Amino acid sequence: MSSTAGQVIRCKAAVAWEAGKPLVIEEVEVAPPQVNEVRLKILFTSLCHTDVYFWEAKGQSPLFPRIFGHEASGIVESVGPGVTDLQPGDHVLPVFTGECKECRHCKSEESNMCDLLRINTDRGHMLADGQSRFSIDGKPIHHFLGTSTFSEYTVVHVGCLAKINPAAPLDKVCVLSCGISTGLGATLNVAKPKRGQSVAIFGLGAVGLAAAEGARISGASRIIGVDLNPNRFEEAKKFGVTEFVNPKDYDKPVQQVIADMTDGGVDRSVECTGSIQAMISAFECVHDGWGVAVLVGVPSKDDSFKTHPMNLLNERTLKGTFFGNYKPRSDLPSVVEMYMKKELEVEKFITHYVSFSEINKAFDYMMKGESLRCIISMEG
Amino acid sequence: MSSTAGQVIRCKAAVAWEAGKPLVIEEVEVAPPQVNEVRLKILFTSLCHTDVYFWEAKGQSPLFPRIFGHEASGIVESVGPGVTDLQPGDHVLPVFTGECKECRHCKSEESNMCDLLRINTDRGHMLADGQSRFSIDGKPIHHFLGTSTFSEYTVVHVGCLAKINPAAPLDKVCVLSCGISTGLGATLNVAKPKRGQSVAIFGLGAVGLAAAEGARISGASRIIGVDLNPNRFEEAKKFGVTEFVNPKDYDKPVQQVIADMTDGGVDRSVECTGSIQAMISAFECVHDGWGVAVLVGVPSKDDSFKTHPMNLLNERTLKGTFFGNYKPRSDLPSVVEMYMKKELEVEKFITHYVSFSEINKAFDYMMKGESLRCIISMEG
Repeated sequence: MSSTAGQVIRCKAAVAWEAGKPLVIEEVEVAPPQVNEVRLKILFTSLCHTDVYFWEAKGQSPLFPRIFGHEASGIVESVGPGVTDLQPGDHVLPVFTGECKECRHCKSEESNMCDLLRINTDRGHMLADGQSRFSIDGKPIHHFLGTSTFSEYTVVHVGCLAKINPAAPLDKVCVLSCGISTGLGATLNVAKPKRGQSVAIFGLGAVGLAAAEGARISGASRIIGVDLNPNRFEEAKKFGVTEFVNPKDYDKPVQQVIADMTDGGVDRSVECTGSIQAMISAFECVHDGWGVAVLVGVPSKDDSFKTHPMNLLNERTLKGTFFGNYKPRSDLPSVVEMYMKKELEVEKFITHYVSFSEINKAFDYMMKGESLRCIISMEG
Repeated sequence: MSSTAGQVIRCKAAVAWEAGKPLVIEEVEVAPPQVNEVRLKILFTSLCHTDVYFWEAKGQSPLFPRIFGHEASGIVESVGPGVTDLQPGDHVLPVFTGECKECRHCKSEESNMCDLLRINTDRGHMLADGQSRFSIDGKPIHHFLGTSTFSEYTVVHVGCLAKINPAAPLDKVCVLSCGISTGLGATLNVAKPKRGQSVAIFGLGAVGLAAAEGARISGASRIIGVDLNPNRFEEAKKFGVTEFVNPKDYDKPVQQVIADMTDGGVDRSVECTGSIQAMISAFECVHDGWGVAVLVGVPSKDDSFKTHPMNLLNERTLKGTFFGNYKPRSDLPSVVEMYMKKELEVEKFITHYVSFSEINKAFDYMMKGESLRCIISMEG
């Protein structure tokens, strides 16, 4: 047992006091883990669009003060009652969604949408007692996605922690806890292109590039990147993208452009923007008879997906995925192993490093579109 | 070789002279088969909604005079140049769509939408020379779907003929050449329910009941039949349907009714009506995480499939199918074998028999909704 087990830990955390205002490094109290909870020391965290979206709080009810952060790596400090899978010293990736291993979803081979621990962006407390484990001078600070990794120590439900190979470098594999796995799994687990097939990727941000990486690993012969920003193509080549289509360059719909390039359509497509028009194009650009389109990007709540039903009847398949269909505890360790075996290249996603005290720079890089992933070193 | 090989055959055919007017039994001339064609003697044919739809000609450019019919069984009389797979005396099922075995679709394991021989409802002639093989006093009569089985003899492309077990009773297996295989394959090949799963079937006509038969064969635990006509439930029980939902009986959408009955949704659904609202309901009634909805029914050309994209992102799958994803030549013989092994029950689809001279009665039965399948005996 560590000497801090059972004690409140005082440490630094980056607190968001108000929507859209720079985070402030504060000293916070982190309570010991309760039933089925684990307290961990975060070593590295990275910034994902979802953090920025809820920090800006433009589309939802704001919940502040809050500690954001959900893409990270860490080491178990202590465990609460009922936790048998993990022990102090284990290396883990915290995940924004969980796997209770008991519900219908966890028992299904096909789903990773755990009934108990499915992503909940509105919840700012822990499930065990409805309380926060974070406070400043006794005043609670809200959690985010059950992870709140912008803190030197955090408390996470055991079902939201993947135990990984202790040899894996935590400053690299932290990016596998959200966006990279989301895109990679969309291709490897859902679109499942066969060797030699063609794949279109809509959106060449980190998630889309991870989907391209999945296509490269699958042995796709053509990987067509679609983005409104032509600056992204050069970088995309590193991820196996072979051709680039900017919908702005054409008078006809992008699905028609792609069909014309590929004798009727690509074999697979993966949509990573969240734009409803891109979703429709991604579906309509796959070949009849066998094409599969996979939706990853999160739409606005008033969007409507519309297509002529003959596009479906001509034997196209439309699927959506959540976190790349990976079950966090069962499957994420094997994604880390893919990196350890050098099948999956993670380094190319990491464009920036900052120390924890400079965390607001990571927000700037992302909002300016300069970074794919910026690693925040907690010890820096 | 038969004595008629290479000769024009004079025989009886039921000719549609005008849209919606009773067919007239006429003596027609049937020319010998040309390159890659086969002339066959039809023994039994049955009536399918598609015949009625094009006979009524309400939604398309009318093409008359025409010989309808595409669900049938027969025996090869003679073959044209280039035909090596079939010889006189072979028992065959003619199919409204084909399999050339050479195109990308035929070479794909996933598609049955042959580029050369895919269904074409507008074409009234044969591919080899753009001519009809039927005439009356030298005046050509149009083909329908490349099959025109409402004739004692017809000419069909070899790619549209499935060679079947000669022991199979032709008065029964004729129904496997279209509707029954369409529904059955939608479940067995596309929805693929696992043993013990729940399946909703929208539309309890012959195709829907064949989809239910597929669910029964798969070992589904619950088969929920959805139809606006409550008279269909009693018959549907024979096909394994365990529960019945009439959308007219509820104030809430049928997808919600089904979700409430099944703790969140069925595992699989198959839509066999062609109504756009039923398609949307069939998709939205499947469970998140693993639900698969399969569209079979043919929509109107102005329909638009609309749903909120979150229904997809929550890991539902939407697929369409054409002819149950069966490749006509490669796969249909095995469907006949399923019947021969008594796995598939065909007799319960056959509700009426008429002789060829009474063919218009078959139209009456179908239009009144009295028949599932009416077998027309060419020798009767």
